[in-house]
Amino acid sequence: MSDSSRRPAGAAVLRQEVTGAIIEAALAELTDHGYARMSMDAVARRAGVGKAAIYRRWSSKEPLVLDLLTELADQAVPLPDTGTLHEDVAGFVRHTSALRADDRAMRILTDLTAEATRNPRLATAMHTTAELPRRAAATELLQRAVDRGELPADLDLDLATDCLIGLAYLRPRTPWQPSEPLDPGVLARLVEVILAALTACRG
Amino acid sequence: MSDSSRRPAGAAVLRQEVTGAIIEAALAELTDHGYARMSMDAVARRAGVGKAAIYRRWSSKEPLVLDLLTELADQAVPLPDTGTLHEDVAGFVRHTSALRADDRAMRILTDLTAEATRNPRLATAMHTTAELPRRAAATELLQRAVDRGELPADLDLDLATDCLIGLAYLRPRTPWQPSEPLDPGVLARLVEVILAALTACRG
Repeated sequence: MSDSSRRPAGAAVLRQEVTGAIIEAALAELTDHGYARMSMDAVARRAGVGKAAIYRRWSSKEPLVLDLLTELADQAVPLPDTGTLHEDVAGFVRHTSALRADDRAMRILTDLTAEATRNPRLATAMHTTAELPRRAAATELLQRAVDRGELPADLDLDLATDCLIGLAYLRPRTPWQPSEPLDPGVLARLVEVILAALTACRG
Repeated sequence: MSDSSRRPAGAAVLRQEVTGAIIEAALAELTDHGYARMSMDAVARRAGVGKAAIYRRWSSKEPLVLDLLTELADQAVPLPDTGTLHEDVAGFVRHTSALRADDRAMRILTDLTAEATRNPRLATAMHTTAELPRRAAATELLQRAVDRGELPADLDLDLATDCLIGLAYLRPRTPWQPSEPLDPGVLARLVEVILAALTACRG
């Protein structure tokens, strides 16, 4: 980007700080009002840029939000690798509980989940950027434990992945509840429960 | 309602079939477009009534939707009482899995969950009509098993309730995925996993 002499004549120069301001403004609008009510006008106003600056980068609200989703999902894949299942599960629960305590990310992902039931492109994007990487991380964590002999060789990996994710995301219970860091005593008990559930996931 | 002579002069006569048509239309609009985009105009058009007929019953979109929530939540409280924990858990999972396979109810509840992060009145209504009865039913099911000696006397009832609900709602994995009835083999394995998890919920 620094050598502008190589850029073909007429190509738009997209300044990174403008792009960053638009992304921050769009995340804030999405958090406050949700996808359905989010308008490009409000994003431009909040970012302090003209609407043309947005449309040079994204043709409409949908591709802009799909890019935001990638930003959010990048923070969301936990993959501890401590050498023991117990510590890996504890790390996974700590990570997911920190994600759930992030009010902005939770509000946006909850809103886009609802929107995805009505918008197949958004559903595909949620599946690809949010669901698949999370499942892959959980499955890899479990497969390593099977390889080490900590989980049964006939583990139903698919069901175990569901259980790990489902139980790791138990608290806070609902997206509208005030989010708090997970109490260490609850974390410790939850890890024991997850280990018991995983061991029961036989094929 | 049949003896109209007892109604004070001037009281609005709210015909049940009109009320029912509005409720059905509002559920359909909410399913197709979500709370943010739902308009009273569209509900009236879909119900084949005038807007005045709606406003005689509900002052705005919000109280109308809060009433719909009560309709939906009434279908959503499962409370099997078979005499054994194993069968009660199987019944609970079957019921929640049928609820999740109800596309309309899932879409609406997912949408209102997202909306509740921005609307405290809706959050309170979701908590009261959807979350509390579901938790109460799960807790009662578990308490009966403790009383029968099927679960440890020092069961962490709060955590066990979370685990039962969290694991019973595992499939389908996401609200935007095509919902199918739970495969009986998966159901049987899931019940075993839930029983293992519950037994590990020690206080």
